Amino acid sequence: MPALSPEALVAQAAEARATYARLAAAGLKLDMTRGKPSPAQLDLAEGMLALPGNRDVVTETGEDARNYGGLQGLPEARRLFGAMLGVPPDLLVVNENSSLAVMHDCIVWALLKGVPGGSSWVGKDVAFLCPVPGYDRHFALCEGFGIRLIPVAMDDEGPVMEEVERLVADPAVRGMWCVPTYSNPTGVTYSDATMRRLAAMKTAAPDFRLFWDNAYGVHHLTENRPAPHDILGLTAEAGNPDRAFIFASTSKITLAGAGLAFFAGSKANVAWYLEQAGRRTIGPDKLNQLRHTRFLRDLDGIHRHMAAHRRLLAPKFDAVLEALDTRLGGLGLARWTRPEGGYFITVEMVQGSAKRVVELARGLGIALTPAGATSPYGKDPTDSVLRLAPTYPTVDEVRAAAEGIALCIHLAALEAAGVGLAA
Amino acid sequence: MPALSPEALVAQAAEARATYARLAAAGLKLDMTRGKPSPAQLDLAEGMLALPGNRDVVTETGEDARNYGGLQGLPEARRLFGAMLGVPPDLLVVNENSSLAVMHDCIVWALLKGVPGGSSWVGKDVAFLCPVPGYDRHFALCEGFGIRLIPVAMDDEGPVMEEVERLVADPAVRGMWCVPTYSNPTGVTYSDATMRRLAAMKTAAPDFRLFWDNAYGVHHLTENRPAPHDILGLTAEAGNPDRAFIFASTSKITLAGAGLAFFAGSKANVAWYLEQAGRRTIGPDKLNQLRHTRFLRDLDGIHRHMAAHRRLLAPKFDAVLEALDTRLGGLGLARWTRPEGGYFITVEMVQGSAKRVVELARGLGIALTPAGATSPYGKDPTDSVLRLAPTYPTVDEVRAAAEGIALCIHLAALEAAGVGLAA
Repeated sequence: MPALSPEALVAQAAEARATYARLAAAGLKLDMTRGKPSPAQLDLAEGMLALPGNRDVVTETGEDARNYGGLQGLPEARRLFGAMLGVPPDLLVVNENSSLAVMHDCIVWALLKGVPGGSSWVGKDVAFLCPVPGYDRHFALCEGFGIRLIPVAMDDEGPVMEEVERLVADPAVRGMWCVPTYSNPTGVTYSDATMRRLAAMKTAAPDFRLFWDNAYGVHHLTENRPAPHDILGLTAEAGNPDRAFIFASTSKITLAGAGLAFFAGSKANVAWYLEQAGRRTIGPDKLNQLRHTRFLRDLDGIHRHMAAHRRLLAPKFDAVLEALDTRLGGLGLARWTRPEGGYFITVEMVQGSAKRVVELARGLGIALTPAGATSPYGKDPTDSVLRLAPTYPTVDEVRAAAEGIALCIHLAALEAAGVGLAA
Repeated sequence: MPALSPEALVAQAAEARATYARLAAAGLKLDMTRGKPSPAQLDLAEGMLALPGNRDVVTETGEDARNYGGLQGLPEARRLFGAMLGVPPDLLVVNENSSLAVMHDCIVWALLKGVPGGSSWVGKDVAFLCPVPGYDRHFALCEGFGIRLIPVAMDDEGPVMEEVERLVADPAVRGMWCVPTYSNPTGVTYSDATMRRLAAMKTAAPDFRLFWDNAYGVHHLTENRPAPHDILGLTAEAGNPDRAFIFASTSKITLAGAGLAFFAGSKANVAWYLEQAGRRTIGPDKLNQLRHTRFLRDLDGIHRHMAAHRRLLAPKFDAVLEALDTRLGGLGLARWTRPEGGYFITVEMVQGSAKRVVELARGLGIALTPAGATSPYGKDPTDSVLRLAPTYPTVDEVRAAAEGIALCIHLAALEAAGVGLAA
């Protein structure tokens, strides 16, 4: 907290307390917890719901999409989403609706069977690097199977590579979670230099894998549209062709509950994935693949569709930033991200105050993701990071919620300085 | 081979050889390998392809089926398919399109986490009982994860219970594959007495599970429509409430590639399943659940739909039986099932001749499932069992194929008697 005169502090606190009391009386009911698309975003895929329509079920290779088979996915779907992800169609697998499920399956198969170049992980000390703040479901997946979570700091270029390079010298470190573009929740996009170092670094475990969750590759919030990165090319170039397991989905492109999820990787990784998947299923839901390819059509179609999302989302992110700027700008009490894509804004506040902010917000009827959720084991030792998810509520609700949250951050900081709510 | 005069044998062989030569010259191209629905069967679900249509996406509890969540499945889907399976809706989970995938997940979770009442199976000697003939993908799933397969004979009431009861006294036996209704591939439906003994038998493994694949519960080939059995009730009554993991799907009701798959079990088993599944996915494709419930509507709707399947399928089964009866009836060279439901006819022929029949059929352009496929490890020590899958080809194709197969069975038996093709 910067030095302020006691009088100024008391005046700030008096205003904040009064505002809090007024908002609490307003009986808000706002939810900023999860990165869900809004109904208006889902409406963008309205035309997909009647596809493929009657009898229009033959794929471009003449297969009947209604029947069994086609484990890797339809060629037209692999071509379309391969282009989106910057991956050749033969190195892409199209699955059911959940990329988390694809990650889960890779982890259980790695545990029970081992990945190419390695053997079963069961009974070994296995650890994953977890850039922090990160995605709670990544962490829970590892934790559920007894995989140790090792936090790694993030900077503006991605995970802090000095830390990463030091930690992968431990042979127990078999994997690392990465959300390379518009990272969840910081919005950071890994720099080229960071990607190159991840691709090239020397790891003690010969079967080390980047769990490369490209969840937000085309989810831009500005008119900038960076080309897809090429982690497969970078790893191959560095002599580590099998290092990356790539994951993605259309959950936040078409429909959150009824999209398509993707696996991609080197030839050896794809062959391994299909071998395991072939015991699990006779084939994916190819009708849903037809729905997607006929609705989105081509890469331009995807970009047009994502631009429509952007027009709905950018005002919500702006509303959050405006509320934070208005109350907290220049006070030095918190800093927050200004993401150019993705689904979240991350706020870093006075240490030891994040839980208190969540509690204060609850008092206003504003639900926030629990403090600590973005850290391994749900524990943020600094208790200073919150993830805001502004996509689902309306712009007016987001603005109201963000003003309330900014107020709570302010109040918690004043409390920490001894002049808060109870003062 | 029954005693025939050498002259009679030679006459039979001459006719069979001549017919074989004629058929071989006809250049057939017929596939009787896999239990796939035909295009005409898939057409029965034509009306489902345009559902849920535009904006009609709200579930009966007011949820937006397009968004994330709803791990257990929509209440309306659980009510409809619970009624179909004879399971209360709260004990049913609706998943993606593949019941094999649900079985796979139960196996990997059993291996890594253990099932209720047990601990992780990893590193232990684990074996599954496999009624034979059975379903090759069941066996391959276990084999892929190093689970030992122990064959058990089948009789007209299901698995031979004396064998089963003896084998489950081994604590390594943790599970047993069961297809209780219209079993794959024999068509046998387990008798009440067999089901009761499976429910009540004493197992050495406290965490023993029946992997109860109710794949064909409503797939009748006659107008008889036996009520769903109640394995949950039987196991509970016998004091083994958690014994059965129930699996099913609509792959052969609506669409083979785009149906719904189900898990059902006791309260403890469902809680366990949801706990594991909750780490794997945020929720299933609920739009596909809406499609199914709005298309099939109610249990009567399912039965009407299955009656339409029956009208397409029964003539194909009849064509196979007629061809077998015509050539082989009364010769004592083979016996075959006359299933009242399901997807297969099983033929048991002269020992040591099944592989030869497959080879002879290939010579006629008729593809058959490899001999041995219905046994664990793909090895039938008697080399005497073949599974015929007559659902996919047209009635005329099925008839032609069945006549060819009957001929090959006849020829192989004559060869075994020293008067075959090469004689």
